[in-house]
Amino acid sequence: MARAAGVDPALVLHFFGSKDGLFEAALELPLDPAGVVAGLLQGSRDDLGERVVRTFLGVWDAAPAQGPMLALLRSAVSHPDSADRLRALLLRAILLPLAVGAGGTEPDRRAALVASQVAGLALTRYVLRIEPVASAAPEELARAIGPTLQRYLTDDVG
Amino acid sequence: MARAAGVDPALVLHFFGSKDGLFEAALELPLDPAGVVAGLLQGSRDDLGERVVRTFLGVWDAAPAQGPMLALLRSAVSHPDSADRLRALLLRAILLPLAVGAGGTEPDRRAALVASQVAGLALTRYVLRIEPVASAAPEELARAIGPTLQRYLTDDVG
Repeated sequence: MARAAGVDPALVLHFFGSKDGLFEAALELPLDPAGVVAGLLQGSRDDLGERVVRTFLGVWDAAPAQGPMLALLRSAVSHPDSADRLRALLLRAILLPLAVGAGGTEPDRRAALVASQVAGLALTRYVLRIEPVASAAPEELARAIGPTLQRYLTDDVG
Repeated sequence: MARAAGVDPALVLHFFGSKDGLFEAALELPLDPAGVVAGLLQGSRDDLGERVVRTFLGVWDAAPAQGPMLALLRSAVSHPDSADRLRALLLRAILLPLAVGAGGTEPDRRAALVASQVAGLALTRYVLRIEPVASAAPEELARAIGPTLQRYLTDDVG
């Protein structure tokens, strides 16, 4: 399962350990972080924000009932240890490589701002299920939220 | 306590019921929703996004260790019933009145987009504690994230 999904079990084990079922949840993530980031950084920089939204929604929507991602989020909200691990994985495997690749100043700040929008998109769409975001087509959300991520990754952010 | 904080106990009870400790947590929220929204809508519409960020952070930072808000978030992520109640309270008491007051088209869509950014800001700053957002001054976050909320509330959102 982990191999088929492209996740490196050693990476997951390093960040999540084997307790709380987190390891099992993370192994089911339909996510190959390095491949995802490389894919996002291909193509025009002008569309980067929209591509991030499309890809993020594709990963969540592909998981059965968003089970693995919701398990990670639930664990992070309830256990500081899990929050530490999820933060480390998100930053090191996805957000920092993305922000560095986008080429802007202060990549750590940009990565944190991107986190603030994509984490909230997940919470709004899959947990709180606030309409019309909960059932909007990915393409519509890419148009609405893509410019936010574009600014956080490549433009002036105060 | 509830009276001093300006929360209407009947409103909280209506949305949260009395189980799971949610009612108690919500009562401790340092939040008078109608007053908060009225305050946000005073002053220039051009600064509305930054004011929302400042006010949101003020509410979270004023709570002791963010206890009541984290309790609500934790409960919503773990229990669909709690998520339903939190969504209803957020939309009816805060986000929809704010979006309607801002005067843009499709206020329900704008309210959901605002939710996606502010919920993620809370998750990033107080739960995942991703730096530098976790320890940034509110004014810096207002400059960085305010334009996002400004666009969601008043501008073209695709």
